[in-house]
Amino acid sequence: MIRFEVRERSASARVGRLDTAHGIVDTPAFMPVGTVGAVKGITPRDLQECGAQIVLSNVYHLLLRPGTETIGALGGLHRFMGWPGALLTDSGGYQVFSLAALATVSHEGVVFRSHVDGSRHLLRPEDVVEVQSVLGVDVGMVLDECVPCSVPREVAAAAVARTSAWAARSLDARRDRSLALFGIVQGAADFELRERSAAELTPMGFEGYAVGGLSVGEDPRVTREVAAHTIGLLPQDRPRYLMGIGRPVDLLDFVAMGYDLFDCVLPTRNGRNGWLFTRSGRVAVRNARYARDPRPVDERCSCYTCGHFSRGYLRHLTMTGDMLAGVLNSIHNVHFYLELMRSAREAIRAGSFSTLRSEIAAAYERQTGLADVR
Amino acid sequence: MIRFEVRERSASARVGRLDTAHGIVDTPAFMPVGTVGAVKGITPRDLQECGAQIVLSNVYHLLLRPGTETIGALGGLHRFMGWPGALLTDSGGYQVFSLAALATVSHEGVVFRSHVDGSRHLLRPEDVVEVQSVLGVDVGMVLDECVPCSVPREVAAAAVARTSAWAARSLDARRDRSLALFGIVQGAADFELRERSAAELTPMGFEGYAVGGLSVGEDPRVTREVAAHTIGLLPQDRPRYLMGIGRPVDLLDFVAMGYDLFDCVLPTRNGRNGWLFTRSGRVAVRNARYARDPRPVDERCSCYTCGHFSRGYLRHLTMTGDMLAGVLNSIHNVHFYLELMRSAREAIRAGSFSTLRSEIAAAYERQTGLADVR
Repeated sequence: MIRFEVRERSASARVGRLDTAHGIVDTPAFMPVGTVGAVKGITPRDLQECGAQIVLSNVYHLLLRPGTETIGALGGLHRFMGWPGALLTDSGGYQVFSLAALATVSHEGVVFRSHVDGSRHLLRPEDVVEVQSVLGVDVGMVLDECVPCSVPREVAAAAVARTSAWAARSLDARRDRSLALFGIVQGAADFELRERSAAELTPMGFEGYAVGGLSVGEDPRVTREVAAHTIGLLPQDRPRYLMGIGRPVDLLDFVAMGYDLFDCVLPTRNGRNGWLFTRSGRVAVRNARYARDPRPVDERCSCYTCGHFSRGYLRHLTMTGDMLAGVLNSIHNVHFYLELMRSAREAIRAGSFSTLRSEIAAAYERQTGLADVR
Repeated sequence: MIRFEVRERSASARVGRLDTAHGIVDTPAFMPVGTVGAVKGITPRDLQECGAQIVLSNVYHLLLRPGTETIGALGGLHRFMGWPGALLTDSGGYQVFSLAALATVSHEGVVFRSHVDGSRHLLRPEDVVEVQSVLGVDVGMVLDECVPCSVPREVAAAAVARTSAWAARSLDARRDRSLALFGIVQGAADFELRERSAAELTPMGFEGYAVGGLSVGEDPRVTREVAAHTIGLLPQDRPRYLMGIGRPVDLLDFVAMGYDLFDCVLPTRNGRNGWLFTRSGRVAVRNARYARDPRPVDERCSCYTCGHFSRGYLRHLTMTGDMLAGVLNSIHNVHFYLELMRSAREAIRAGSFSTLRSEIAAAYERQTGLADVR
């Protein structure tokens, strides 16, 4: 089971330490996304060298392929993917409602058809807990009903009620005391519903709390308002995880609110597309001006890619579509995200967090067309 | 400039040492293929760990993208691709005649249209030498006219004459004494033409000799007969390179004839497709029987992939099309090829080379449908 301790604070931002059976996770922490049990293009060895301490994977995807029994038979998810650090799995709530076809929710659980082969599956909250035990992950998320901010209030209210009922059943179903479980606060953009959701979940005593249903298409101002309101409803002594966020600026903004855990596909997805992150803003490495640029992506970066390759080379590989482009660009971007979080922890300790935020905000706001970084 | 020394022999097979400005290459050697300046999916660091001492790249591809001037401006091909070991570039003769559209050969050189964007290019033998100097590779191949075995004798004879004339002009054009040049023997499946080609090239005193125009669609028995006949026509004291070959069994068969250098896209291409090589034969890792197989691809293999991942995991990644499948499978296959050559060198030294050949032949002949390994 995990243990969590807040070690330093600066205003609402905090530095903490999450102890797991697979090592320590320094928070605020970014979790690279390993959807099907692999962070796309990055070996576990390179991932560790990037500084990753925890990786996120996904019950929904692993359930469909290769099937969680297969992973259990092969010694659990850590051994399966060769990842010695901590693992957290999302419950699949978000994926069922965004990827799967014909998802039908009932009291019992959710019935959906696989986006891969159309096969029909029933997922109950108890199944998700059981599956996460079989996977042997350090932290599991409970099954939630994830609705976007655009749904009518009654729909959002029903999702909150269902998510609370499922959360209680998830805790009851847990047999394996080595599996930490996080509850997920829903409630769309409605403060009152977010309050209700948090009020129902927090007495249940989860090992951590997540805020879900954000960054799923709503106005970014709404994301911020809801995230800011909701964090105040969550226990101070537990890790608080804002799901599916985000750009470098976002990470720091939400760290400032007091969130501890983050995940996002941006560093790997943008890496494959040739969008690279740096402390001075993004580098669109396909741009012709980099063709003969001998500098690394970021002169201040200590990643393998920046230590060995020029912008000119990365541009060439990206333009020719060579697989190694995705590998090298993703290594850089994941390293950047992890290094940004390390800088955030240091800045919180040193009392200079607002300086770091301003630097990153300035670097990214200077660039127009920011939306396409996403 | 390179130096080559034959150190041990066992019948016609030989162990040698090629000294280059970028390290030693123990021969017989396999050169992983880095077509556009990258071995697909494998970082230079992983490539070194696989045991690679020399990598092959390609004038034709680099000329089109990113352009050899760009590579020159970025410090040459070694620095560009971050590869500290030896580099050999193919001249583009083969690619012009197989990939490019509308190739027209004249005394002057070859005019062709790029397979990438249709742009028109003229490549003369002098240009190829100049380009290889700019790239700064250790070994360059001269421009040749590569014709398949199926062409009429007059066409093959004309190609031999042209290849010889171009070879002489290539040597005359060389200003850079650090660039070693290899001549390429052509002559299709005609022994007399192969003899003529070798007789014309060998007095020119190239630093090494290649046999081209094989493994381009002809019957494998023809490949063997021509390769066996031609090697006897080449100087014993120079490295002898059989271009574009082959499967594990082929490599050993041609090592037995006395060839020293090989290149082939098989280990990386088959890796991406989920065909894995082992000492006991190939493993088609997509096969359902591997779904829960906890064993590494090859229990006797010391590569990163076999040290950390099961067949079940590689099958899963290959089936889901995750980029990491290509990376991990390619690392294993390239390591297998390099290890096979290391074993061949040891066996030649120990006088047990025929045992090794029988073992590999038996492992691969046992499997039906061998052709599709290709």
